[in-house]
Amino acid sequence: MSILKMIDSPADLKRFSPEQFPELCEEIREEIISVISNVGGHLASNLGVIELTVALHYLLDTPRDLIVWDTSNQAYAHKLLTGRRAQFHTIRQFEGLSGFCKREESEYDTFNAGHAGTGVSAAVGFVEAREQRKQKHRVVCVVGDGALTSGLTMEGLQQAGGSKRDLLVILNDNQMSISKNVGAISAYLNRTITGEFFDRITEETKRVLGRMPHIGDQVQRLAGRAQELVKGLLLPGLLFEELGFRYFGPIDGHKFEHLLPTLENVLKLDGPTLLHVVTKKGLGYGPAMDNPVWFHASSPFDRGTGRPKKKSAAASYSSIAVNTLIQLAKEDPRIVAITAAMSEGTGLAAFEKVFPERLYDVGIAEQHAVTFAGGLAAQGMRPVIPIYSTFLQRAYDQVVHDVATQNLPVTFCIDRGGLVAEDGTTHHGAFDLAYLRHVPNMVVMAPKDENELQHMVKSCVSYDRPAAVRYPRGSSLGVEMDPMPQTLPLGKGELLREGTDIALVAIGVTVHQAVTAAERLQQEGISAAVINARFVKPLDGDLIGSVAREVKCLLTVEESTAMGGFGSAVLELLSEKGIVGVRTKCLGLPDWYIEQGPQDLLREKYGLTADGIHQQAKELFAQVAGHAEVA
Amino acid sequence: MSILKMIDSPADLKRFSPEQFPELCEEIREEIISVISNVGGHLASNLGVIELTVALHYLLDTPRDLIVWDTSNQAYAHKLLTGRRAQFHTIRQFEGLSGFCKREESEYDTFNAGHAGTGVSAAVGFVEAREQRKQKHRVVCVVGDGALTSGLTMEGLQQAGGSKRDLLVILNDNQMSISKNVGAISAYLNRTITGEFFDRITEETKRVLGRMPHIGDQVQRLAGRAQELVKGLLLPGLLFEELGFRYFGPIDGHKFEHLLPTLENVLKLDGPTLLHVVTKKGLGYGPAMDNPVWFHASSPFDRGTGRPKKKSAAASYSSIAVNTLIQLAKEDPRIVAITAAMSEGTGLAAFEKVFPERLYDVGIAEQHAVTFAGGLAAQGMRPVIPIYSTFLQRAYDQVVHDVATQNLPVTFCIDRGGLVAEDGTTHHGAFDLAYLRHVPNMVVMAPKDENELQHMVKSCVSYDRPAAVRYPRGSSLGVEMDPMPQTLPLGKGELLREGTDIALVAIGVTVHQAVTAAERLQQEGISAAVINARFVKPLDGDLIGSVAREVKCLLTVEESTAMGGFGSAVLELLSEKGIVGVRTKCLGLPDWYIEQGPQDLLREKYGLTADGIHQQAKELFAQVAGHAEVA
Repeated sequence: MSILKMIDSPADLKRFSPEQFPELCEEIREEIISVISNVGGHLASNLGVIELTVALHYLLDTPRDLIVWDTSNQAYAHKLLTGRRAQFHTIRQFEGLSGFCKREESEYDTFNAGHAGTGVSAAVGFVEAREQRKQKHRVVCVVGDGALTSGLTMEGLQQAGGSKRDLLVILNDNQMSISKNVGAISAYLNRTITGEFFDRITEETKRVLGRMPHIGDQVQRLAGRAQELVKGLLLPGLLFEELGFRYFGPIDGHKFEHLLPTLENVLKLDGPTLLHVVTKKGLGYGPAMDNPVWFHASSPFDRGTGRPKKKSAAASYSSIAVNTLIQLAKEDPRIVAITAAMSEGTGLAAFEKVFPERLYDVGIAEQHAVTFAGGLAAQGMRPVIPIYSTFLQRAYDQVVHDVATQNLPVTFCIDRGGLVAEDGTTHHGAFDLAYLRHVPNMVVMAPKDENELQHMVKSCVSYDRPAAVRYPRGSSLGVEMDPMPQTLPLGKGELLREGTDIALVAIGVTVHQAVTAAERLQQEGISAAVINARFVKPLDGDLIGSVAREVKCLLTVEESTAMGGFGSAVLELLSEKGIVGVRTKCLGLPDWYIEQGPQDLLREKYGLTADGIHQQAKELFAQVAGHAEVA
Repeated sequence: MSILKMIDSPADLKRFSPEQFPELCEEIREEIISVISNVGGHLASNLGVIELTVALHYLLDTPRDLIVWDTSNQAYAHKLLTGRRAQFHTIRQFEGLSGFCKREESEYDTFNAGHAGTGVSAAVGFVEAREQRKQKHRVVCVVGDGALTSGLTMEGLQQAGGSKRDLLVILNDNQMSISKNVGAISAYLNRTITGEFFDRITEETKRVLGRMPHIGDQVQRLAGRAQELVKGLLLPGLLFEELGFRYFGPIDGHKFEHLLPTLENVLKLDGPTLLHVVTKKGLGYGPAMDNPVWFHASSPFDRGTGRPKKKSAAASYSSIAVNTLIQLAKEDPRIVAITAAMSEGTGLAAFEKVFPERLYDVGIAEQHAVTFAGGLAAQGMRPVIPIYSTFLQRAYDQVVHDVATQNLPVTFCIDRGGLVAEDGTTHHGAFDLAYLRHVPNMVVMAPKDENELQHMVKSCVSYDRPAAVRYPRGSSLGVEMDPMPQTLPLGKGELLREGTDIALVAIGVTVHQAVTAAERLQQEGISAAVINARFVKPLDGDLIGSVAREVKCLLTVEESTAMGGFGSAVLELLSEKGIVGVRTKCLGLPDWYIEQGPQDLLREKYGLTADGIHQQAKELFAQVAGHAEVA
């Protein structure tokens, strides 16, 4: 444990000899496994890029040279080498280091990310800024093979390849996105790194590049058309060559004797260059190598066994949604499920076990997932897309333009709605109610508990139009389940409690907190009605309107951005109905990007607990009482 | 003019001999030129696919077989051949035929579109629905080379190529998207269809396919690995082959002697197949061939000269925005402009003339455009993206996740905000205020006239954060321009008129209508205040709040979806400020997809004229007066 402790910046790294790098990598590996087993995190991908990270910081002049980590969940070694070793144990904790790159955290973090596929586009931006400003530094983008299936990456590669500017893209190929990779590009990459080509090409690349310490323009121009054709037969990078890149590789991403000379040489080349590096997810930790899918983003685990430290008692909302889906699919052959590389996170793996032919994993391609669903629905199917709220953002136009405009019966099971905890800013499902409720034809629901969730999943599939049900990350409440899912009456909420002083109009998981808050208010002599709205759209105007007319003030509650969200829908309703004189307040997430932290802590901080609701309700009511006296 | 008149459905087409098709195509060409010169429309692309359309409907069994037209602005011949000849003169008019495919219009229209790049994904959905339902029909998707640069198309191709299902993709390659095509894929296609390869390959394809009337599995299996390699040297379709497609072409898309036998044969092949067809935009009409960019989507024109029938007196909002940008860029070398294939539509062509090195056309790739801008901004540049409101929808996640989360100074010049007229449903900029205002860190503005527009463009660039200015399609008002653009105080609106009965709080082009309405109200004894809000975000809480406290009712006005939009922001503000007792109404676009029609007609229909505002204000005030009497 000595080398890593001597490295406070990449400059320190350069003082060591490459012979010591394997030892350094072992220390980094040890540190990452030790911390992540305690706090959870993206273990597998990080263990796979340690050697690559050391090699890059050794050869580049960072932060002058710019590294863009696509998705940036693989930047733990990068953080350890760039002055954040002492804080590393705080990673993914409240007020600790981010699990992703953050410009506000370090000058070595060049671009914030969290969603896959943005890296090449950002790097092309860096490159063009460099050219405009007549600077000379190098720009390197590290992108996983999973993110390669994202259309955004292809768009970025297409500009980069066309521009002829100097840019090195490193394809970090571990043959996984999050789940096992799928589709044509994956098959293509598999062909390139398996079979007889692999060893020979590795040797050849090494040999050719090893002999060219100073590759200049002249040497490159010697490669004529004929040579290109021969190379086409020998080298497996044609896809990238056709996109305007010079392709090198594949090379072993864990052997410094391959990595260093190859990287050193490709960094000297002009124009768009792609280096294909093959790495192993989870390398150095047996359980992670055996189960890279679970260790893609793991909860805290026992280091010895690799097992999760605690198992929750109640089923997750995700699994309730998928179990309902399985139940419905047994009755209705029109139901198929679609995932964008998130079979495990969304719980769809269970669906696939029962209906392997009715589960489509389209890779990290949310846009396509939604338009593909539109195509299925237009031909009589009932596609269901379980998807994280934050990732559905990528397909906003496909919801608006391809599904809702044709009123197609596509069901969106929006998982991770609201606060998601450690993944933080880029992963909170904060905006979904706001970006979906203005879409014509859409139905938008959120259940108060898992029993209502099963009814809402069934309702979505039954309504014969685009419909979304949005539920939170984590364990459900443990309520009793009705034996069969039922279709809920469209646009009908539920009055849980009558009251005359204040109305608490809540949606989703905040409903039971609102009920608790109402009970406390009652004890304090304030009569609080509670509405479980169920529908963000169409809103239950009759119910909310009739209750609003009886009370002096009304508090809306949602775990979603308050701006433009559910609360603002209720305000619109009151305006339409001409209900004046009732004081209102919309409680929800504030108008900034929410930080990382445990769900409970964040809910407390933002007032979305029974305590918070109780407090806000009391204050609101006090204002009305005061206001009435003044008037 | 005899053949076309005898065709009421594709079945009728099959009764004619292919020898008569050139004559039929001339008739179709004549009909399209004649109608579009009167009503405007996508002339050039439609003239380019007439032969292809005839060939497809002749060989396929539509509507059982399914044709997906990507973007679907090239489906005029398709409409003429599928029972809509008599209504064709109504195309793109209010209550007439759509300029795009519409399922609600015809069973031959399989999927609605308007935005580029959705076709392959929808077609893959059709294919999988066919497999699930054990049906046998063929699915053909026609996609332009421009839409090929869209990431969504690449995502769709990637699933199609990986799935091995039967699907024919026809690449309609006219070497244009809307502007001249750009980037690596375009360069790749150019290499394939120019130079010595072209003629030879055309001949070879014809010869090979012509000899194989019944291509079965056995014959296909004969093609072994060696042959694949040789083919790689000879055939230019490697990019598609690597994506899992069998590639054929390029062939001349205007010669039936090439089209019919080739299509007939590729339609018999199993698996994902791509046929590369080269067409000429505007074929058969000289002015459109000479200027395919203008004739991509033209206004009505004089048939003889090809000149627009009427020129507007006042400058367009687009040109005002771009002229301001040019002015600012002269002072500030950090300013660069980015377009997603819309140099002409957004007016950026003028910018390119002055600053050719500072204009980036990234092709039809809105997602990349925004993340690319984020990369530029992170490296000290001040990128500006003029983009149509409806197309920015495609980049919602990039705004949220790549730009705003890092508070990067990217300027969005949102063109075609509000109603756009003939392009209709898929092109109205109805949702932008609603989908942008809940994004943290964003500034969202809309000018009351072109003078304010220039100040807002300058303001966006000056605020040092993500900022959007949203302006309408069409001619500006002709107001006097200040000599220099000025930075407006952030979040400050403008009180245009004081009043005590009602407040009209308007944004954008509705402001001057609100002023006119207020004058009429005054004549009727109703005292109306008028606020030009200028900012949707941050809202001028002080101004709106102080006026709202003085009046009995308040009407918000916006040319944008009322749900979740500007009006709802005002309601949130009143709620936050505890302003109760003022009756409100939000006037804006309704919660459905707006039909096509002239801007003036639609504005009248939806009450967004001085008349409409006057009427709504009167009704609202009458309710308050009535309410007061009752109370």
